[in-house]
Amino acid sequence: MTDDTQQFASDNYSGICPEAWAAMAEANHGHERAYGEDQWTARASDYFRDLFETDCEVFFAFNGTAANSLALASLCQSYHSVICAETAHVETDECGAPEFFSNGSKLLLARTDEQGKLTPQAIREIALKRQDIHYPKARVVTLTQATEVGTVYRPDELRAISETCGELGLHLHMDGARFSNACAFLGASPAELTWKAGVEVLCFGGTKNGMAVGEAILFFNRELAEGFDYRCKQAGQLASKMRYLAAPWVGVLQDGAWLHYAGHANACARLLAERVADVPGVSLMFPVEANGVFLQMSEPALEALRLRGWRFYTFIGAGGARFMCSWDTNLARVEELARDIREVMSA
Amino acid sequence: MTDDTQQFASDNYSGICPEAWAAMAEANHGHERAYGEDQWTARASDYFRDLFETDCEVFFAFNGTAANSLALASLCQSYHSVICAETAHVETDECGAPEFFSNGSKLLLARTDEQGKLTPQAIREIALKRQDIHYPKARVVTLTQATEVGTVYRPDELRAISETCGELGLHLHMDGARFSNACAFLGASPAELTWKAGVEVLCFGGTKNGMAVGEAILFFNRELAEGFDYRCKQAGQLASKMRYLAAPWVGVLQDGAWLHYAGHANACARLLAERVADVPGVSLMFPVEANGVFLQMSEPALEALRLRGWRFYTFIGAGGARFMCSWDTNLARVEELARDIREVMSA
Amino acid sequence: MTDDTQQFASDNYSGICPEAWAAMAEANHGHERAYGEDQWTARASDYFRDLFETDCEVFFAFNGTAANSLALASLCQSYHSVICAETAHVETDECGAPEFFSNGSKLLLARTDEQGKLTPQAIREIALKRQDIHYPKARVVTLTQATEVGTVYRPDELRAISETCGELGLHLHMDGARFSNACAFLGASPAELTWKAGVEVLCFGGTKNGMAVGEAILFFNRELAEGFDYRCKQAGQLASKMRYLAAPWVGVLQDGAWLHYAGHANACARLLAERVADVPGVSLMFPVEANGVFLQMSEPALEALRLRGWRFYTFIGAGGARFMCSWDTNLARVEELARDIREVMSA
Amino acid sequence: MTDDTQQFASDNYSGICPEAWAAMAEANHGHERAYGEDQWTARASDYFRDLFETDCEVFFAFNGTAANSLALASLCQSYHSVICAETAHVETDECGAPEFFSNGSKLLLARTDEQGKLTPQAIREIALKRQDIHYPKARVVTLTQATEVGTVYRPDELRAISETCGELGLHLHMDGARFSNACAFLGASPAELTWKAGVEVLCFGGTKNGMAVGEAILFFNRELAEGFDYRCKQAGQLASKMRYLAAPWVGVLQDGAWLHYAGHANACARLLAERVADVPGVSLMFPVEANGVFLQMSEPALEALRLRGWRFYTFIGAGGARFMCSWDTNLARVEELARDIREVMSA
Repeated sequence: MTDDTQQFASDNYSGICPEAWAAMAEANHGHERAYGEDQWTARASDYFRDLFETDCEVFFAFNGTAANSLALASLCQSYHSVICAETAHVETDECGAPEFFSNGSKLLLARTDEQGKLTPQAIREIALKRQDIHYPKARVVTLTQATEVGTVYRPDELRAISETCGELGLHLHMDGARFSNACAFLGASPAELTWKAGVEVLCFGGTKNGMAVGEAILFFNRELAEGFDYRCKQAGQLASKMRYLAAPWVGVLQDGAWLHYAGHANACARLLAERVADVPGVSLMFPVEANGVFLQMSEPALEALRLRGWRFYTFIGAGGARFMCSWDTNLARVEELARDIREVMSA
Repeated sequence: MTDDTQQFASDNYSGICPEAWAAMAEANHGHERAYGEDQWTARASDYFRDLFETDCEVFFAFNGTAANSLALASLCQSYHSVICAETAHVETDECGAPEFFSNGSKLLLARTDEQGKLTPQAIREIALKRQDIHYPKARVVTLTQATEVGTVYRPDELRAISETCGELGLHLHMDGARFSNACAFLGASPAELTWKAGVEVLCFGGTKNGMAVGEAILFFNRELAEGFDYRCKQAGQLASKMRYLAAPWVGVLQDGAWLHYAGHANACARLLAERVADVPGVSLMFPVEANGVFLQMSEPALEALRLRGWRFYTFIGAGGARFMCSWDTNLARVEELARDIREVMSA
Repeated sequence: MTDDTQQFASDNYSGICPEAWAAMAEANHGHERAYGEDQWTARASDYFRDLFETDCEVFFAFNGTAANSLALASLCQSYHSVICAETAHVETDECGAPEFFSNGSKLLLARTDEQGKLTPQAIREIALKRQDIHYPKARVVTLTQATEVGTVYRPDELRAISETCGELGLHLHMDGARFSNACAFLGASPAELTWKAGVEVLCFGGTKNGMAVGEAILFFNRELAEGFDYRCKQAGQLASKMRYLAAPWVGVLQDGAWLHYAGHANACARLLAERVADVPGVSLMFPVEANGVFLQMSEPALEALRLRGWRFYTFIGAGGARFMCSWDTNLARVEELARDIREVMSA
Repeated sequence: MTDDTQQFASDNYSGICPEAWAAMAEANHGHERAYGEDQWTARASDYFRDLFETDCEVFFAFNGTAANSLALASLCQSYHSVICAETAHVETDECGAPEFFSNGSKLLLARTDEQGKLTPQAIREIALKRQDIHYPKARVVTLTQATEVGTVYRPDELRAISETCGELGLHLHMDGARFSNACAFLGASPAELTWKAGVEVLCFGGTKNGMAVGEAILFFNRELAEGFDYRCKQAGQLASKMRYLAAPWVGVLQDGAWLHYAGHANACARLLAERVADVPGVSLMFPVEANGVFLQMSEPALEALRLRGWRFYTFIGAGGARFMCSWDTNLARVEELARDIREVMSA
């Protein structure tokens, strides 16, 4: 089952990184108060406030689907709608969770540009399309940083979007399942990529970057966080032994492992892209900015790769394949994959 | 923060037991398929089927609130009601989660007997009280094994309840947050205490018995499990790195640690009860069967105990205190607590 | 089917009063804009604003269950709770509608005084009982005017309750299914009994006072009404041919029929109570203030009444019977009923 | 406000037809049992069973949004999805009501053919597109008869769709807001267009065909109706004075007025289409089968029409205008509208 050729299937196929593990081990001594009243939760929250240079409200949820859905539900009522990219995880891979948590809010799909990003124009178009009572009122924009196709919003792009949101009376939420990868790519501070650019709520993902469970939800606009603790509890997202969700965050935040690992994953992706850049018949579908490489290749070539044991997803258009790199991706395996791609294409 | 005097506050103040930890460590190698398609989830499920001697459907949720709420929601529609004990966790400590997951099912509170247990009569009375369209139709009974007050349903009590459920067209769900403790106390097999007695769905708790997260939901009536995988996913309860929820179960199930630890916790509770049995002014509120000891003591005595550093909850009636024992409770600390109780009472 | 002996079963067994009917007939000419943009809706709304002497927001819903549930849902989130009387219609006769519309808000039952009314003390007790995250946070108080047992809150009682709500951070909603009867009994103005006494939202019932469908929802605190039009629409409560809900209100409001009929119903109830006041074995369970008479009588006597064709409900306690008077109750029938009660009691 | 030039804006701008009114007037005598236990509800239900030649279950809801949403919610769970046309009312004009009533079911939009109809191929494509747990499972198909663009499914088209549904494990629901118009156009029996063709649940609209409120929901598969009465009640859709919803149905069903009026509306639409068929610059966007005429015209021409006082909606594509005919549309006004169209086009 476990084998190296699965390394590029998904970043959530990876395990727990040493720093997170060590913190869990340290947390695993004696008895601790439950439900987030423990020292680890307090410490993790403080690390977030330091990292984001602001006194934000910090919550934890078990996974990204819940974190996003709870955040969106807190920003709208059931008769509101949420604007997202056609390719957004909330739309394509959460089985209707946002609709369930919000008791019926509709997701409105905005066209993305060629890099898979939302634009002010696309948001405006969707938001203004229907303004009568017979259609849900647009209330929130959610964008994914880094995007599902491995691209990254620049600070000025974020500001432009948040300005549009401001004009239209829309809240701005960021699905940061791969927020670390975006920070690593841009070399920008977390603050620059969030509240300084107008993001009100961030779901900061740990699972895809070396943790087992436990996404953080950060409210930069603290008023929006009112009652969010109750919301988490009611939705089955308040861990009793919260220390095991919080400690890994302490582990990856205290010495910068979160950024180091994201940078490594990005570098692996870049390396793969470079190695296959000149392979005839292979083309990059999107610029490689975060930790994913999307290659357009023929179906027979993909099948040949699969026969050599490689695992990857092919859900984007015809002939495209996604290769994800992780905090623990092995450079030698990247080289090996690149060689195999070259070989199957020359066959 | 962490100190020994917190040992009796709650069994979810305890940490991860060695067997669960070792299995997580073993699981933490290389890449694994996500969302429950990994080997650990398969192994854990098989261990459950062996343990329960039946080909049940097995699911995992992050915590007990979610496990109970998802199970109840799968057994009823929003216009149905769920009969539970006045003291049931689903009523008193889940912040309306059952109502949220089911989109509005009402909990109907049945009187319990002096041991905190539901009875066929109490169920019948509630179920038949209203049968008109203006009130939610009773559809499910949920009982807690062991109960919130530390008592345990005997197999014949369970069968009597399930027969009543059958007559009334009610499903039977068991909240088994402390199911292990019930098994250990009775020396009965898990099968005897569940499907052989008519229980259709069990939420088997691990968190209170040495795990970090990951309650198991077992459907003995497999038809009732239809769509439950989608339900978990939509509700934000499908872990991507499922191996970390499943492996601990493998750890505690493979060599019987689950039962051993529950037995230990029960023994600690029994020891405490014995040690204070003859202390004037202290009386047991409920028979000590599982891992909780409920003592009636004066408020000044409780305050004196608190001043000595002991932590415990006092939410049941006037003057009562709950002392919970865990998989890792230290016998020496039990003796010390007993001595302190004796001392504060003689003061 | 239709017969005079059903006259005391329920005030919603009655038909449409002449004024409401005439207005519907007048409205039934030609084409009108749909969804509340018609002249009748505007006129009815203005009549409400005049009657209540304030610029309130006015909405219409099809029935009282929906009106109450929508109003409560607009005042709380799913993790909040609503404090109501044990006997409140929202608790006993709406089949979990408040829980459904709010996606899970819990109703907390407060004890009522001997007149079936909520008191500041009872509200405070319930609101403060649980203030931890494991239980829904109290957010709204709903009271019923007139109460389910035919009594009426005085302005000072309302003010005392609203002051308590203010202290505790609770919204105050009034279920006014029989608000007209309360006004008629007290001779107080609608304003005195609502916003001047601190009520923020009133559901003003028409169905029980001569209309077919169409309860009005009045927000005296206009900010609370934000998005309520969308809420109604999404919940299937926006009538396309709204004129038929609004016109009857114009009919009953324009010349005071609403108050006249309520006064008549109250008078009938009072007459019945007077006529049986001296009948041995019959006792009034509650003071007769609005249009209901609750009599304690022996079961054989009730059965004898039924054999004479009378219809009434007996859902309150053992031996009690409810006789409801309506806008169209016939005084001769009241006398006849009183005679029959006297006769069966002397048998 | 009310004027003849609004006659083509919408069929729900029309009033109550004489037959429905007369039945309401007849029903408006004395007291009747509430909540559907009256004689009118029984009679209306029997008329439906006669008309559809089958012992179906009959329910009433206040409006079409509620009827559709309740029916769909009864056919699926929150983690299921509903396949509908891009132009379906449930998607475009119910403000997220289906998502709200079902607690989160997603609507999946299928492409329609050039007549605005769903096809087996389009349904199959959508249903099979995603079959993994990360996306809601397709469970129901809803089609609109007549369609939003005035076309009508033939019996063989319905059978082909229901066969596809059968193969794919999908329920089949029909939004029959204009079902009468479809029957009138085809000359087919209601049975042929519903259960004989595989439709399991029909929402039969009365509002657009001469009634004030009160859509009927017919379950041909009676098992699917289990608990539907409770569902209606909980969702605020059970009228207390049900006779006023049921009587109009008796009025229009007993002597065929429902079909007569639908035929009249259809004829008016056909006449309008014929009268403008040869007008240069005007083209029919869809075949005129039911009571709507969709004309492609230039924006200046539409503006000129508006200046002459005509009211119509232009929400479908660029330059298109919808003219709806009703049970009470005046033939002279049709001729006048046609003349005006001719004139503005020749200007």
